[in-house]
Amino acid sequence: MAAASARQVNIAIIGAGGVGKCFLSQLEQLAARRPDPKLVLTYICTSKKALYSTDHVAISIGSVTSALASSQQPPLALPKLADFLGTSGSKTVLVDNTSSQDVADAYPLFLSRGISIVTPNKKAFSGSYKLWQDIFAAAAQSGAKVYHESSVGAGLPVISTLKDLVETGDEVTKIEGVFSGTMSFLFNSFAPTSGSGGQWSAEVKKAKELGYTEPDPRDDLNGLDVARKLTILARLAGLPVESPTAFPVQSLIPKELESVASGDEFLEKLPAFDAQMEETKAAAEKEGKVVRFVGSIDVATKQVKVGLEKFDLSHPIAALKGSDNIISFYTKRYGSNPLIIQGAGAGGDVTAMGVTSDLLKVLGQIA
Amino acid sequence: MAAASARQVNIAIIGAGGVGKCFLSQLEQLAARRPDPKLVLTYICTSKKALYSTDHVAISIGSVTSALASSQQPPLALPKLADFLGTSGSKTVLVDNTSSQDVADAYPLFLSRGISIVTPNKKAFSGSYKLWQDIFAAAAQSGAKVYHESSVGAGLPVISTLKDLVETGDEVTKIEGVFSGTMSFLFNSFAPTSGSGGQWSAEVKKAKELGYTEPDPRDDLNGLDVARKLTILARLAGLPVESPTAFPVQSLIPKELESVASGDEFLEKLPAFDAQMEETKAAAEKEGKVVRFVGSIDVATKQVKVGLEKFDLSHPIAALKGSDNIISFYTKRYGSNPLIIQGAGAGGDVTAMGVTSDLLKVLGQIA
Repeated sequence: MAAASARQVNIAIIGAGGVGKCFLSQLEQLAARRPDPKLVLTYICTSKKALYSTDHVAISIGSVTSALASSQQPPLALPKLADFLGTSGSKTVLVDNTSSQDVADAYPLFLSRGISIVTPNKKAFSGSYKLWQDIFAAAAQSGAKVYHESSVGAGLPVISTLKDLVETGDEVTKIEGVFSGTMSFLFNSFAPTSGSGGQWSAEVKKAKELGYTEPDPRDDLNGLDVARKLTILARLAGLPVESPTAFPVQSLIPKELESVASGDEFLEKLPAFDAQMEETKAAAEKEGKVVRFVGSIDVATKQVKVGLEKFDLSHPIAALKGSDNIISFYTKRYGSNPLIIQGAGAGGDVTAMGVTSDLLKVLGQIA
Repeated sequence: MAAASARQVNIAIIGAGGVGKCFLSQLEQLAARRPDPKLVLTYICTSKKALYSTDHVAISIGSVTSALASSQQPPLALPKLADFLGTSGSKTVLVDNTSSQDVADAYPLFLSRGISIVTPNKKAFSGSYKLWQDIFAAAAQSGAKVYHESSVGAGLPVISTLKDLVETGDEVTKIEGVFSGTMSFLFNSFAPTSGSGGQWSAEVKKAKELGYTEPDPRDDLNGLDVARKLTILARLAGLPVESPTAFPVQSLIPKELESVASGDEFLEKLPAFDAQMEETKAAAEKEGKVVRFVGSIDVATKQVKVGLEKFDLSHPIAALKGSDNIISFYTKRYGSNPLIIQGAGAGGDVTAMGVTSDLLKVLGQIA
């Protein structure tokens, strides 16, 4: 079993945005540090442009960004890309750094061609249950690997831990946590464990200014992002959740503002609804508690839900800081005190870190 | 790459005590759930007895305990065991469920024969730095794998997380935490964040009665167990720590009681020294803090230390419950808020879980 001369694994990347750029930087370092297997970038594209050559010549990782900017090649259509990668003669890992449903829908195709996938893209694992089944069936059939640590909690070891619990035969009874950096920041500022906190609409505005929200904050406040993460964890825990809209998800968008034209108009009109959130906060305070936006999965009763809950000041969920995520796994083996993972659950570098560590896991198995 | 007919991996186990029994139960379930690769137990021994046949016939996992009890076979000497396992013709994983230094010293031999190792045994990774180097050199040379998640924090994903951080190129600046379930229990009861807590000697006695300490509680109070775990983490973070006695470790055994004959005599005489601990507690309280027994690694200044520290009541280390461990990783990517892992860090089932998940990782790579 002595290591032979360096083996080669081809890497193809879709997406070169925030996470994509951080991943490229980590990949460049990784390729420099670890000569075996030799990592060869053979394809990279954004939604408009691509870099590749028909004979799979290595693309220099260090100069990808400028080369992409000046490229005249359009991206390959996904079925063509599967052909291109599947006929290279080398083992190949596709890194999907997009949040595209189209790319996600093509995972079964790539996997069936023996192409492994690592990705932070939530869409593949939180869309229809049929797609989930197709993905893992294709992987099982071909032996290709699919890893998606960063689809929940960015680089925090959430999915790997849940898989370890399940695969070693523990019985996960409940999963609960704060799964959104945006929601964490908003509630840690709006309803802190000490001090009175800010006004709801002002905190939302501040979060947007700090870059903690989507361009339209309603895309965070509708709870769908958290629902997608819960869907992924629930499925890994064994519940065949049909979709992220198949369970109760509380939206923090006032009904009246659901259809206003823009995020800016939404922010302008939000102060008129501060009284509602103030009431929720006061009700919690009366019980000596604080309000938090959490997701929970009760595996025994098969109940998944997302929304506001009250927590004692000494509860780890109440004590969260900044925009951190926290995820508690209650299991038979761990008993009354859960296994807890906590830390930054968003950001380019830590999201890319989850993708890179997934890539290392795949390389350990296929190379 | 389609899965062929079930491949076989041989399993050899040393140790059938508390963790060993839990592991056997998890292995039996695992073998039943996952037909590929086929897991075949070919050797198991305690310090006195063994079960094996020269032609490597499978041992029934379900009836191992009773078969071992009535066995007349003595265990093979470790070099003979390496020969036995190395000539089976099948890939083999050795599971060391002991805390034996002798077995640990033989890891380079097993690894050089291509035999992978999974273990909760701290001795191999926290002994001399030379042994550490020999182990990983032997593994690199033969391609055999060595995993030891449960050597720190039992089944908590501590080592895998640290490895992921390092291997993906993050810069770990500091690691800090409560690494001993015994010390956690003692200080959470002696100096709780609310209420006045018990007397030190009474808490030590209670911990012993509850089975939270070693038979002689001094084996917990001397800090060496924590020092061993710190040694492992420091080395993984890149510091070539020579041994667990190469850095400051505060012992909580009063000098006068270091040489009393028995743990019972120690417990009997400990109340006379309660005033010392009471003073330490009062000094922390004066600052609005609580005292905890922690280990820390400052990677930049290369300082490793184990001992008493004071923490604000709102600090996650102060807020720990029961006998939980907590480990905080401060890194460049994670910024000011650390990545935190928390939960039970001792106990047969959760320790065995770390061993079983290590075994799954090895199987994914060698089978």
